[in-house]
Amino acid sequence: MKTIAPLSDFGFKVANTSDEAFDVFNYLNTNRFEKDTNPNGVVNIGVAINKLLQKTVVDKLNAAKEFDFESLEYGSPRGSDAFRNEIASLVNRHFNVHTPITDDDIVVTNGCTAAINVISWIICNPGDAVLVSAPLYGAFLSDVTHRTGATLEHVQVPVSELQSTSQIALFEQKFAELSSKGIVPKMLIICNPHNPTGKIYPRKVLESFYQFAESHNMYVLVDEIYALSVYRAPHLNDTPEPAFVCSDSTSSESTSDLEQLVEFESALSWPNLSDFINPQRVVVVHGMSKDFCMNGLRVGWIISPWNKDIKEAAFRTSNFQYISSHTDSVLTNFLSDHEFIDNFISQVCNRLKESYIKISDYFKKNGIGYYPAQAGHFIWADFSPLLLKYTNKKLIAASKSENGNVNGTSNGTENQNNVTLLTSTSQLSVDDCKSMWRDAVYKAGVCYTAGANFLADRPGWVRVIFAIPWDELELGLDRLIKFSSPDQ
Amino acid sequence: MKTIAPLSDFGFKVANTSDEAFDVFNYLNTNRFEKDTNPNGVVNIGVAINKLLQKTVVDKLNAAKEFDFESLEYGSPRGSDAFRNEIASLVNRHFNVHTPITDDDIVVTNGCTAAINVISWIICNPGDAVLVSAPLYGAFLSDVTHRTGATLEHVQVPVSELQSTSQIALFEQKFAELSSKGIVPKMLIICNPHNPTGKIYPRKVLESFYQFAESHNMYVLVDEIYALSVYRAPHLNDTPEPAFVCSDSTSSESTSDLEQLVEFESALSWPNLSDFINPQRVVVVHGMSKDFCMNGLRVGWIISPWNKDIKEAAFRTSNFQYISSHTDSVLTNFLSDHEFIDNFISQVCNRLKESYIKISDYFKKNGIGYYPAQAGHFIWADFSPLLLKYTNKKLIAASKSENGNVNGTSNGTENQNNVTLLTSTSQLSVDDCKSMWRDAVYKAGVCYTAGANFLADRPGWVRVIFAIPWDELELGLDRLIKFSSPDQ
Repeated sequence: MKTIAPLSDFGFKVANTSDEAFDVFNYLNTNRFEKDTNPNGVVNIGVAINKLLQKTVVDKLNAAKEFDFESLEYGSPRGSDAFRNEIASLVNRHFNVHTPITDDDIVVTNGCTAAINVISWIICNPGDAVLVSAPLYGAFLSDVTHRTGATLEHVQVPVSELQSTSQIALFEQKFAELSSKGIVPKMLIICNPHNPTGKIYPRKVLESFYQFAESHNMYVLVDEIYALSVYRAPHLNDTPEPAFVCSDSTSSESTSDLEQLVEFESALSWPNLSDFINPQRVVVVHGMSKDFCMNGLRVGWIISPWNKDIKEAAFRTSNFQYISSHTDSVLTNFLSDHEFIDNFISQVCNRLKESYIKISDYFKKNGIGYYPAQAGHFIWADFSPLLLKYTNKKLIAASKSENGNVNGTSNGTENQNNVTLLTSTSQLSVDDCKSMWRDAVYKAGVCYTAGANFLADRPGWVRVIFAIPWDELELGLDRLIKFSSPDQ
Repeated sequence: MKTIAPLSDFGFKVANTSDEAFDVFNYLNTNRFEKDTNPNGVVNIGVAINKLLQKTVVDKLNAAKEFDFESLEYGSPRGSDAFRNEIASLVNRHFNVHTPITDDDIVVTNGCTAAINVISWIICNPGDAVLVSAPLYGAFLSDVTHRTGATLEHVQVPVSELQSTSQIALFEQKFAELSSKGIVPKMLIICNPHNPTGKIYPRKVLESFYQFAESHNMYVLVDEIYALSVYRAPHLNDTPEPAFVCSDSTSSESTSDLEQLVEFESALSWPNLSDFINPQRVVVVHGMSKDFCMNGLRVGWIISPWNKDIKEAAFRTSNFQYISSHTDSVLTNFLSDHEFIDNFISQVCNRLKESYIKISDYFKKNGIGYYPAQAGHFIWADFSPLLLKYTNKKLIAASKSENGNVNGTSNGTENQNNVTLLTSTSQLSVDDCKSMWRDAVYKAGVCYTAGANFLADRPGWVRVIFAIPWDELELGLDRLIKFSSPDQ
């Protein structure tokens, strides 16, 4: 019998390349922290789930609709008319739209992951590049590239520049670099509100992004998945706060940075978008997962009011992104109670703000640096002092183990085991960062997102999810601090 | 402002190529026949939905599980362990498996459409070919090719040869033809039970298919989506029946054909599969849509007990085929009641048989030819006599309209409008076939599947779904006969 031919290049690669973040994600499901039933399980402060209003959501969904004959039959693969009408109504009420969108502008998908994937392959040919700012939402790495043949090219933007037009020079530089290699950047991703920093792009930065894309003949995918989870803003009477940076940290430049607290402006809200870019280049994604605390239901959508071809291509491939008819009708009913929804959105923001205040206080008390955030479920935090402690603890443990026993070579000094310890966070490596993250998940029972998985520029920066009950969040953070401290 | 670059080659093509079957499918959702509320709506006898047990299914689903906190959170993208365990149990109980499969052999997808698409792109590189017998299930055309860069190459197999090893010569011929053009057939699809004919492949044909694939270094995708909808078989004490062919028909060769009534044998049931093929080449798909009457829930699965790479690649891209956590848990509970399920499968088969008998009687009474079927929701029928009438009726109408008024040129003869009418079904074209189908949907209020959409070898052959309530089915067929008859 013949040796069988390998799978496709894609299939072979994906089957034989390890993807640690994917493995960890799947491990989390097998050992979830549950206060009563699995108290030693992993506290998940790494995956962006908003658990703050689960009861409200579940009660409303259960009231919404039972299975009926219609649930068993094929609905429209782009989402039923009724569902798309409710989505349009939601967006028109809450995105400050310039021109109201209609059901016809929307294609529903089984999650925004699928939405970003389908947009990538209807826009990019194999070999084309997609540009995105880093640190980035890690799943973009697969959402954009899997099956499309496109590459994701990140532009390293210091967080202190994230709200400044100065970053455009970095994008220009990357564009020139790629062009010189014959690589065509065909699409730009703008993630606004920004994941993982929770910052919002000021209008002038968005203008510059649009002009940049226009000048280079690029499409723009605007990921607005956290559009309705803006909990700090001028209209809420919040005031800017300085970045909190602890003494021994990897970030030297930003100690005194005062954040720019700006209003979120959806791409759909601009009266003068065409002053900056041909709107046909622009497509927006949003969905139920984040703003409505429903990651598990896998429902996202593509909004394309300006480009008929994008809409049509997404529609005509929607058989592959099909959601359940039952989910479609349950969510139609869910969204149709406008009073509930509008009130729910306020509640989401209030709860996020409460939790944000708690975690920022915790960070200050425990000497953990962070950048102030405005939106989303997360905060970008500087664990480098913890990482330094953890790394030295590990070096000592390794040395002890090499020397056979603990007391043999101990002399009570800092170099007690004849091991050269790190003295500054600047000595930390990406390997250290990944090592602590791995141990946190598998040994300490807490999962955050390592900066390395989000292409952070410095080891030690991480994304922490705070949209979970405070006692669980505090337990996770306590575990982490205890785990990395030298006397454990 | 610059003219924007076109979408990707794929995106541009899919946005700008008309796909009539897709359009009709979406139209059907806007004007569905409902006895009480929309009696003039389109009776759908074209889309394979089993409506015979909807109440049983809906009642069981509603009893199964409400939304809970877990529903809101990410489950495993390949399906929860619990769900995959229940699927494995179902398959082990009903597929006469040689070696029991486990949860680890399964990847859940949002429908078999998505399953076939993901298998195609993890196996085929762009430019590779996939072989399949025609007439075929029309959606293979997009399931295999969309986004994969692979082509679908069909081998025209006369229905009278479908259960004979003689068809292998046709596959060899196609293989040689493609090879001579430098095209590599990388995968063979075996659809068993066969869609659209409802026939089952005898063991000796399957053996030959496996040997053919082995000898040419191909993978085999075995589509067993109708595995549990086998309603006529030797073990049910059925007897073979002759193909029913009416006098004026396109099929001359098969008047006296006696069907081979064979048992369904899943690829998972063979004790000696490796005598014919390296089992690593073989992957099976199945799901909830057909055998459990749940098209709308979008749940299918890939079973790969023999090839770790296929399993791993499908798993690692499963974020894009993700089903809802709620659907996952509802269906886990649904499948967990083994007594209900085992009884339900019997009921499905009994109901299908009742309906099959009714439609075959109807066909005999109305002079509509058909091939006997054993499994699935459909019957392959010969509408060519109807198509002949319809086409002549249309020719006359066109002539009348050209001549300004009805009576002006009428002389009472067959050629009453000086138009040359067709005298034999052999004169019918694919255009006639599509034309009648289009008119049936938009004008007569009944939708069947035109053979042209399933790559039938002769105009007039169609697929009719009989898994719907008899009064609705009869209404649809009556409408069709009335619509194509000359005196209307």
